[in-house]
This record gives sequence, structure tokens and C-alpha cells, in this order.
Amino acid sequence: MTDDLRIAVLGVGLMGAFHVDALSKRIRGARVTVVNDYFTDKAESIAASVGARVVADPIEAISDPEVDAVLIATPGAAHDEQVNACLDAGVPVLCEKPLTTDVASAYRIVQREAQLARPLVQVGFMRRFDAEYVALKKLIADGGLGNPLMVHCIHRNPAVGDHFTSEYMIRDSVVHEVDVVRFLLDEEITSVQVIPGVPTSIAPEGTSDPMLVIFETESGRIITDEIYVRTQVAYEVRTEVVGERGSAVIGLDQNLQVKTTDGRSGGQLSPSFVERFGAAYDTELQHWVDAARAGSIDGPGVWDGYAAVAVCETGVEAVRSGEKIKVQLDSRPALRPEPVEGPRNPSEQPGPGITAPDLEGARP
Amino acid sequence: MTDDLRIAVLGVGLMGAFHVDALSKRIRGARVTVVNDYFTDKAESIAASVGARVVADPIEAISDPEVDAVLIATPGAAHDEQVNACLDAGVPVLCEKPLTTDVASAYRIVQREAQLARPLVQVGFMRRFDAEYVALKKLIADGGLGNPLMVHCIHRNPAVGDHFTSEYMIRDSVVHEVDVVRFLLDEEITSVQVIPGVPTSIAPEGTSDPMLVIFETESGRIITDEIYVRTQVAYEVRTEVVGERGSAVIGLDQNLQVKTTDGRSGGQLSPSFVERFGAAYDTELQHWVDAARAGSIDGPGVWDGYAAVAVCETGVEAVRSGEKIKVQLDSRPALRPEPVEGPRNPSEQPGPGITAPDLEGARP
Amino acid sequence: MTDDLRIAVLGVGLMGAFHVDALSKRIRGARVTVVNDYFTDKAESIAASVGARVVADPIEAISDPEVDAVLIATPGAAHDEQVNACLDAGVPVLCEKPLTTDVASAYRIVQREAQLARPLVQVGFMRRFDAEYVALKKLIADGGLGNPLMVHCIHRNPAVGDHFTSEYMIRDSVVHEVDVVRFLLDEEITSVQVIPGVPTSIAPEGTSDPMLVIFETESGRIITDEIYVRTQVAYEVRTEVVGERGSAVIGLDQNLQVKTTDGRSGGQLSPSFVERFGAAYDTELQHWVDAARAGSIDGPGVWDGYAAVAVCETGVEAVRSGEKIKVQLDSRPALRPEPVEGPRNPSEQPGPGITAPDLEGARP
Amino acid sequence: MTDDLRIAVLGVGLMGAFHVDALSKRIRGARVTVVNDYFTDKAESIAASVGARVVADPIEAISDPEVDAVLIATPGAAHDEQVNACLDAGVPVLCEKPLTTDVASAYRIVQREAQLARPLVQVGFMRRFDAEYVALKKLIADGGLGNPLMVHCIHRNPAVGDHFTSEYMIRDSVVHEVDVVRFLLDEEITSVQVIPGVPTSIAPEGTSDPMLVIFETESGRIITDEIYVRTQVAYEVRTEVVGERGSAVIGLDQNLQVKTTDGRSGGQLSPSFVERFGAAYDTELQHWVDAARAGSIDGPGVWDGYAAVAVCETGVEAVRSGEKIKVQLDSRPALRPEPVEGPRNPSEQPGPGITAPDLEGARP
Repeated sequence: MTDDLRIAVLGVGLMGAFHVDALSKRIRGARVTVVNDYFTDKAESIAASVGARVVADPIEAISDPEVDAVLIATPGAAHDEQVNACLDAGVPVLCEKPLTTDVASAYRIVQREAQLARPLVQVGFMRRFDAEYVALKKLIADGGLGNPLMVHCIHRNPAVGDHFTSEYMIRDSVVHEVDVVRFLLDEEITSVQVIPGVPTSIAPEGTSDPMLVIFETESGRIITDEIYVRTQVAYEVRTEVVGERGSAVIGLDQNLQVKTTDGRSGGQLSPSFVERFGAAYDTELQHWVDAARAGSIDGPGVWDGYAAVAVCETGVEAVRSGEKIKVQLDSRPALRPEPVEGPRNPSEQPGPGITAPDLEGARP
Repeated sequence: MTDDLRIAVLGVGLMGAFHVDALSKRIRGARVTVVNDYFTDKAESIAASVGARVVADPIEAISDPEVDAVLIATPGAAHDEQVNACLDAGVPVLCEKPLTTDVASAYRIVQREAQLARPLVQVGFMRRFDAEYVALKKLIADGGLGNPLMVHCIHRNPAVGDHFTSEYMIRDSVVHEVDVVRFLLDEEITSVQVIPGVPTSIAPEGTSDPMLVIFETESGRIITDEIYVRTQVAYEVRTEVVGERGSAVIGLDQNLQVKTTDGRSGGQLSPSFVERFGAAYDTELQHWVDAARAGSIDGPGVWDGYAAVAVCETGVEAVRSGEKIKVQLDSRPALRPEPVEGPRNPSEQPGPGITAPDLEGARP
Repeated sequence: MTDDLRIAVLGVGLMGAFHVDALSKRIRGARVTVVNDYFTDKAESIAASVGARVVADPIEAISDPEVDAVLIATPGAAHDEQVNACLDAGVPVLCEKPLTTDVASAYRIVQREAQLARPLVQVGFMRRFDAEYVALKKLIADGGLGNPLMVHCIHRNPAVGDHFTSEYMIRDSVVHEVDVVRFLLDEEITSVQVIPGVPTSIAPEGTSDPMLVIFETESGRIITDEIYVRTQVAYEVRTEVVGERGSAVIGLDQNLQVKTTDGRSGGQLSPSFVERFGAAYDTELQHWVDAARAGSIDGPGVWDGYAAVAVCETGVEAVRSGEKIKVQLDSRPALRPEPVEGPRNPSEQPGPGITAPDLEGARP
Repeated sequence: MTDDLRIAVLGVGLMGAFHVDALSKRIRGARVTVVNDYFTDKAESIAASVGARVVADPIEAISDPEVDAVLIATPGAAHDEQVNACLDAGVPVLCEKPLTTDVASAYRIVQREAQLARPLVQVGFMRRFDAEYVALKKLIADGGLGNPLMVHCIHRNPAVGDHFTSEYMIRDSVVHEVDVVRFLLDEEITSVQVIPGVPTSIAPEGTSDPMLVIFETESGRIITDEIYVRTQVAYEVRTEVVGERGSAVIGLDQNLQVKTTDGRSGGQLSPSFVERFGAAYDTELQHWVDAARAGSIDGPGVWDGYAAVAVCETGVEAVRSGEKIKVQLDSRPALRPEPVEGPRNPSEQPGPGITAPDLEGARP
């Protein structure tokens, strides 16, 4: 209880730096001891600000004697090697999505972790820790909507770089809805269809922005997802679940309602993911840190990471072919017995309503 | 930076126990070492759950060698002696409202703390740390509404005990709007009028529930506050600010919108303050812990506590007389020079929230 | 059923011309045969557009052989003489508010009409015919909120002329809330208090804009009304009723929700009363025309007109004195027996839901 | 201008009776002179209530000497013969959807009417006259959203009869979205795909309820439509348009917001189409009556009726095949020259509503 979890953060770009800040100011029981980045000066600057050391090689950082756990926020292409190195070292790891960039390597991690006594790899799907998603999940799980029949998702960004091609949009943006759907409905996605519409005129040549993505699940439920990343308006994430006995929607952005003489209503819009999901990232980190101190995870795991990669790669294929493509998932390894000293018991936790449901919902 | 702040928690009723839980699970850089409560068995039970000791006498708890800071969550009548003991011991303290139960004792604390090199006493007005209030404050401070002219507050509880008389409603419930108004408008309240309406039939004899409270401020702004604590519906806190160039409202409770076959929409209502302000309490604690480790505070201080007592006692007088009563505030001691290594100045950066600081932190 | 009601419209300023347009294009069973206005050329132009004659003297217009009913939209100062002329002639009349400009003359009309076999004078409080107010009234009448305890009103205009002094704001704007409160709560207002706040800097010297008006009713209910007529934003009318078993609000302006790249949300705001209450004016006219063809009225009557004058004149006194002033109402004449061939039976009317409740709620 | 339009109403089931009521009480310039229905006693009863005659044969009713115009509200299978009889007789007709029940007969009507000097057939797509749709159309037409890229529709009924099979849902429910999309985007639908999801357990065997319908338009825009007719909740119609420069949504049902002790919020839901579109039906009728008195139409015409049949029949094929099916539209006859004394051109001024016209009318 008294010793902080010593964390190596690999990659201190936007997300990595965000996490370092949280781990140094807001998260209990953790401190950043090692920082690694391809750009050494960036690593130096961030490390200096929190009293950490720079370790130039990420694999060395993972096995550094002053490191109890690893947070991977490097580009996706580096994840496979780094996650495997964490498994080699036996240290808990929180890996930002994607788990890896291809299905085979993701599945190898699934198989490998299945040999361990307890899970070590948590994947960074932060929406599972967002209060609105948690409330929606709870509503569904409690039967408040009856059997869910259809889900409608909206995912909009105000602006992105030109590297956000149609395929990138699937891998980097739609991946969140992939996980949300699996989280809310508690079943696998079985097919993906992508319908390119009329692109916004500011989209680069060849990029379909917006696109309509349609998922089907094991039980035959239909999910629509509008992905539109150059709206020039705001960061908007909306999800509606339509069930046999009711419907519910989150993300209408109505916390602060403003009417002003210039007709603006900026107060109700999120400029970026930080305003919308900043608290969810912190909650995610706190859960992970608490679990990692007990040598485990408390959130989506390798199977969730693997399934997301599989669905997204199928989605990329669907973008290319224009057809509905079936998702091929390999067999899921049997669940391990629950570890003796697992994460904290939600029933002991009288804190803010969001925490207890988080735990239940987020567990792999 | 490495050593946790060792905290004595005085009073482990509903709020105190809530804080112990947060300090043990979610707040960074702190741990509860000493627990005190009038009911020893409750103190024992809570202390045992977090590995703390029980100290039977609150004044001894304050000066315990293993205590760096104190959190006071005892009944209001005990606050005067306990806060003064903290000042005697020179330890930072977070005192739940009220600061004290009478104006004279509150002002003595103001005068006494003014002699110190830096503030030690923070008062637990948690709404200043709520994301919606922070956004509203920022909108006003940024001039987004022009000069604020009027404020409308709604404060509703689903149910309370019979000890919530009209006067108790002023001291225990309206006190939050007193602080919100001072926080948002950055000026003092100068008069209070209380208009009892038709009481709900479930209110005890002699209790005016709901009541309409009207404040005026130094610059002549008008504030309305509906206080209604037996609605049987939900916990609702709404605030609208009407300015020269626009208006803004928070608290419309529209995060999750549900329509079900039985016509229910429970999902969008907060059963209690925990769902609505649980995160604000945690943010408040984290700010206080961070500041206390540097020997100071980061939130509303003794002057805010004193002003709230003065306004609420005037409000109680207004309940009794039915007249508009002027608030008498004693002179405010000169501000101390800013401490060298203190945290950021709360009066300049009154909002905490995750948004602004995070955003800065996240950008590499 | 086959003959149209032939109507004289007195006064064809903004409201009168609006009514002429409706009576010529959208209202069934009526046509404008006579137009009168102080400005003859305006009368000529409007009359020509609908094939009506101009009669230069309003009293002659009322007794014109081609006139079955009269719509008075002249300035308030002319109402007393014109309404009395209608009573002399025995023709049904729809008189825009105010009924008259002083209490004594309004009460004389009440007494005079009480001698008749059936009511002839309807007063133009159009909100009673607005679908949202009708729904709110129905909700209250059906017991959906339990006993109403408090009402909060917001009434904002984007801009008005300089003749909107504090007193004018009471007589011309607050008068609508006076009638709404009486309509919704079905009881009289017994006192008025007006609290001037900080005026917007664009208000003329000496005008308190916004103001807070507080009403009490016979049963002791409290009503707050923010009147603010120079918001520079939009036309906003909101009413919230807080009852023993729930609360309800109308006027949140959320029919069309827009988010655009320039941050505008103009679509959800009403530039003027036309967008907000245009349909209510038409419904009001249709109800009045149908009733007038049967020689009666179907909406608020002289007592409602008198009570509104009495409350507003008390409000003007309250503006001047700064005190809470009691409303003095003379005795209400006994109700006449229901006329044999009264307005149409709401139970025979399967049309849009708004009509049936309108009838019930609007009847004097 | 003085003589009422004498109308024969064919079919007085739910919709026909609704129209007879409106034509007898709320619509200006019209009266029902002839009533026809397969069930004579129903015809007698309705006719008696409004002083009309029953004519037993619908074709005779159309050519009755006391009939100036015809309103067809019979089952769809009867429309072809009846509309053609109206064209034979040269009388204006308002035909409830569908224009006919097969593409060939609908196109023959298109060709036939193209020979006339002016259009005679208006099709009853009432949403074009709904204030919210009019506002949305105006927003798009004014460029407020930039180029529209995607549209999301929700269409839910609380309950329907067992005859609402998947195919019936396309023809009777989705047909409204077909017209809305053509109305809002001002272009043709070119393909239809229907994706059956998990049906609600109360749907009859073999009926896919809800379904997801996907349209593409000439310019490549994508439209999603959730059709779900057994929600057990309420009548909900929502449409969101996502454009290059913003998005807008109507139908969030937030006019009246209620919170009650039993957790109900029924006030904001529409039990049926009457509450949601009752006013739109009346506005549609008034526009049609005004135009018919001048011998023309003022609303969607035969081409709109034909296109809707073509798209819906393609949709039925898509239900059967599970494939995306292209819509085959025959060539559109050249537009006639604008009639000299016709009403305003619906294609230029598609929205009716009270707002814009009223506003103009009201300004003296």
C-alpha cells in the first residue's frame, strides 16, 4: 500500500505526455520513473518535469530495475515488440490501442498471455471508464432497455491531419466504436460493411470522409456508425441503443447551455477528446495502477485488443472492397481462474457512482 | 514529493467516511493515519479498513506526530475548537462547511489566520471543483456572457430528515448557493430575503419547503434561489447566469436520455449528491492534498467560510422576520504576499477540473 | 355554418395587420369587411389587400351593417371606448390586451357584461392557445405534478424601443405572465413585488432592465418572473412549474438543434414572438371566430382582462415604491348560466390534440 | 374568393375522418359536400355530422355536380382508378400516399398529368408542411449546413397491427422518409438496401422489426433510416442532416420536460402521429384548398408520388433479396410553363409553416 508503482512510459507524444501528467498529478499510488521516446529531447524534457530518467531503448526501459509497470503510448507499429517484452519481463502493461497492427501478432499475444497465471496486458479503450458509457452499460445490463436490437453511433472530430485516410479512420477512430459495441452488447462483431458517402470538400483526394460503417454481431444485432473526422465543428461522440423496451442516448453535449448575442453556443461543444474523455482517461489509469500494484489488470484485456484489431482489419478490407466482409476470430482461450488477490472489490467502494459500475463493466 | 501527506480525519459520518474512502483509493499523495469520531466503534471500523489508528480525542488527533494535515467532517458545532487547534498546531486543514456556527467565531479565525505567513484553512465548498461550475465560471470570467445581471438557482433534494427546518435549510443547503454566487460573481452578498411559499404537504409543521431566497450583491445584482428539499424526485442543482451579452445554464441533467416502455426516464436524474458531485469532491481533495503538502491551501479559504456564515445567519434572520435583511461583513484583512513555493493562486485560477490543466499538460 | 363572420379590425399596426392576414388566409368562417386605423393610408392599403372597406371612425366601424364582430388592435388607451361601443352594439369582440388602461374602467366593463345573457368580450391572451402551455395546463389539471407550489417564469425579448420603461415592461410584457399564472394555477394573484437589478448598459437611463417580479397567489404560492427585454439574443419564454409530485418546464427552445462550423446555433432561437406564438395567435382567432358565430366567446374574458389590469397597475406601483403591494380586486359577478348554443363541444373534436385541451383550459 | 371549395372525401377511415373534421372546423374556404366509403354506415354517420351527402360510388362522387375537388383517403389499391377519374373530371385532388400501388400505374398518371396545362394531383406527404421539417429544409436551402453529406432518420411507432410486415413497413412507414429525403436534398434516391436486425420479440413471425434501411442519392449521399414500429414507447420521428459546415437535428421531443415522483416523463412523448403531425396535416389541407380554389396544387405532386412508389417497391425487393437494389426511374416529363394565376411554386417555396409567410404578412 505504501510503495508507489514505478512506471515506464514509452512514447511521450500527445497521449503519452497526457498520461505522464496524470500519473504525476492526479493518479494515486504511481509515479513515472522512466521515460522513453524516439525523440530524445522530447523524452528529456518530459522526464525532467517529473523527476524521471530517460532510457533510450524501449526494451531496456521495460526491464529497468526501477520499473514495476509499463505504459505504452508509442506508434502502433512498435506495440507488438514492446508488449511481448513486457510479457517477457512479467510486468503489467497498459497498451494504448491498437494492441498490435495485425491480427496474427495480436492473437499470438492472446495465446501467450493465456499461459500466465493472471492477465498482464490491459488495452487502452478509455470509453469503458467514461461515466456516460458506464451509465448506459449499466442501464442495458440491468435490463432497463430490454433486449438491445440496434445501436447508432456518431463519431466526429473537428479536424485531423491528412494522414487520416479512409483506412486510417477505421483503425484509429472506428476502433473506439468497435470496442464500445463489444462492451455494451457483450458479444462479438461478425461482419463489417463500409459505405463511402459524398466526401466533405476539404477531405484529401481518395479519402471518404464521412463514411457509414455497419456492423453485425453474433446475435444478429445491427450497428450503424457515422465516422466523420473533418467536421470543422467540434468533437462529438454519441451512442444510442434501441431495445425491446426502450432506447437511450448519450453524448448530446448539453451540460452547459449557452445563448449569446453573437448566436454562439460554443459552451456545449467539446473542442477535443480531452474535454469529453479526459476524466475517463484518469479513471482508466487509476484502475490500471491499482490493479497493476496487485500484479493484474482491471479493464479490457488482450482478447478485447485482438478482437478490435480483427474487426478493424476486416473494416479496412471492407473499405477496399465495398462489400460486407465477415470477421474471422480465432478461438478464445479458456478463462483463467480468478486471481486470489485481484483488483479491489467494487462492493467495498462507496465512492462516486461511476467507479463501482466501471469495475464491473470493464472487467475482461 | 515522495512522502504521502498523513491525514487525520475528524468525524467519519457520511461525508467523513466518503472522504476516507477517497483518500485511501483515489487521491494521490495522501493517506489516512488517524481517525477520530464521537462514536468510537465507527472510528475503529473505518480506521481498520484503511490501516489507520483511532485517536479518541480530536484535539490530540490534530497534534498527533503522525499527522501532517487534518480533514474536519464533524458536526458544525465542533468546528470552531478544532479549526483553532489546527491553527495552534500549524497544520493545513480542510474543514467541511460551515467554518463555524456563528459569525463572531468565524471572524476570529479570519483574523487569526491573517497573522500567518500563508493560509492553512480551506473550506469544503466542493461545487467550485465541479466541471460544470468551472466551465460556467470560466465563461463568465472570459466575458462570454458580458456583465452578469441576474442569477437563477434551483437546489432540490429528493428527501431529507425532519431536522431540515426552514433555518436548517438555509444553513445546510442554501449555503452552497451562497458560495456559488460569490464564486461566480466574485463579489459579496449584501442582503437576503426569504419568501416562504406553499409548503409541500409532507413537510413537517412549521417548515417552509420550498422557499424562495433572494440575494443582492455589492453591485446590485439579483439572485433567486429555490430551495426545495423534499421533492421525492431527485437531486437537482441548476444555475443560470443571465448577462448583458448572453445567458448560460448548467444542471439540466441531460447526460443520459432514456425513453422506456413504462415511460420512465430515471437515467437522467441523480438520486443523490454522490452522482452529481462525487467527482467534484475528489477533485477538491486532490487540490487540497497537493496544496497541503506545500503547506498551503488551494480553494475557498477562511474569508469564504466567514462570508458564508454571515450570509446564512442573515438568511436565518430573514426567515424569522420575513423582511429583507442586510448582511453585515466585517473588514477583510489585507491579502498576504503570495507564498514563494505555494500552489497556483485559487483566486486567479478558481476552477480545477480536468479540462484546462489537462489540456496544457497533454500538449507535448 | 355557411355565412362567414364579417369582421371589423380596428388598428392595423403590427398585431392588427397580423390578424388581418390570418383572418384572410388561415382562419375558417371569417372575413375582414371593415378596416379602421388612425393612419388612413395604412388602413387603405391593408383593406385593399383583402377586399375590405375603410371606415374612418372606429365607433362607426363597430356599428357598420356589414360587421358581425370586432377585433380591437388599437393602442390600449382607445380600448375602453371601443369595447363599450361593442357592448352597445351587442357584437362579439376580441380585444388585444390590455382590456383598458385603468382598473376602474376595466371593472365597469366587467359589471356591464355581467348584465348580458352571454359574454361578448374576449381578451387576447394568446398563450392560453399555445400547444406547450396547453400541455402544461393539462399536466397540472390532471394532477401530474401534484399541488403546484412554485412557478418560475423567464420572459426575454432581443430588443425593444426606448418607450419600454420599467412601467411599460410591467404593462406590456409581464402582463403575459400575469395571465399565464392565473391560467395555470386557476386562482388570483394577491401581491406584487418588483426588484430592480443591475440594468443592462444599453437600457435607457432610469429603466430597470432586467427586473425580477414576484407574485403571490390566493393560496400563498410564489411566482418568480424575470423580465428582460433587451437581451440582444432572442425571444425566449420559459415557464417551470414545481409541484408536490414533480416539476415541468416549457420553452427550452430545442425543436431544431444546430451545430455549425461558425459555432452558431441560431436555429433553436426565436427571433420574435411570431415564430414562438404565431400558431397560438391563429388558434386563438379560430376559437374566437367559431364562438363569435354563435354569439359568444371561447377564451379569456373580461374578468381575466380586469384582473390583469389590476395586477399590472399594482406592479407599476410596486416598481415605484420598491415595496410588496397587495392587489385589490373588486368582487366577481356571479357566473351566468351556460348559454344554450355555446361554443363547440370539445368532445366532438377529434382534431390535433391541442384543440380539445385549449377549449377546456381557455374558457372563462 | 367568397365561395367555399366543395369537397368529396373518398374513404373515411382514420385519416379520412381526420380530414373531414379539419375541413369542417379548421380549414378556411372549404366544406365537405360529399362523403364516400365502402362501409355505407360509416359514410352516413360522418356525412351527417357535417351536413354532407353520401354518394355510394366513388367515381360518381368525383363527378358529382356539387364537387369542386376530391380528397382520396381510400386504401391504396383504389387510388389508381380514383385519381384517373379525377383527371378525367378535371378536378383537383389530394391523394393520400401512395399515389398508386405499382410503379407502372403511377408513371401513367405522371405522363397523363403532364399533358395538362397545370397540375391537378397533390400527394399527401404531410411532413413537408411540418414546422420543424420546414425549418430544417430552410436551413439547408440557405446553406446553413454547407453541402449535406449524410442523413440519419429514426421512425418509431409505439404499436401497429399484425399486417405491418417488413414489406408493409417499407410501403407505409419508410415511404415518409423517402419523401423527406427527396424534399430535404432535392434529388432522387438511386438505391435501397434493407438490413434486417434482431426483431423485437413481439413482432410476428417473419417480420423484421426494426430494420435498417440505407438509401443512396444521385449525388452519392448516404441516408440511414431506422424503422421500428412496435417500440411500445411512443411515436418518434427524428431526422439529422450532417453537412460540410454543420449538422442539425429535429424531433428530440423536448417541448415539455417533466420530472415526477414516479420517474415518468410522458409529457415529452407523442402517443401517436396526431400530436406530432396534426398541425402539419391541417397546414397541408389549407395549402391544398387555397391552391385547388385556383385550380392547381401547392405541395408534392405526381412525380413525387411516382418516385416514392418506385423507391418503396425497390425497397420491398431489397427486403426480399437482402441486396442493395438500384432504383429505376423513368424520364421525368418536362416542366410545364408556370400557370398565370397559380399559387406560389411549391418547388421554390417548399415550406409552408406559419413563420415566414406570417412574418411578411404581419409587418404593416
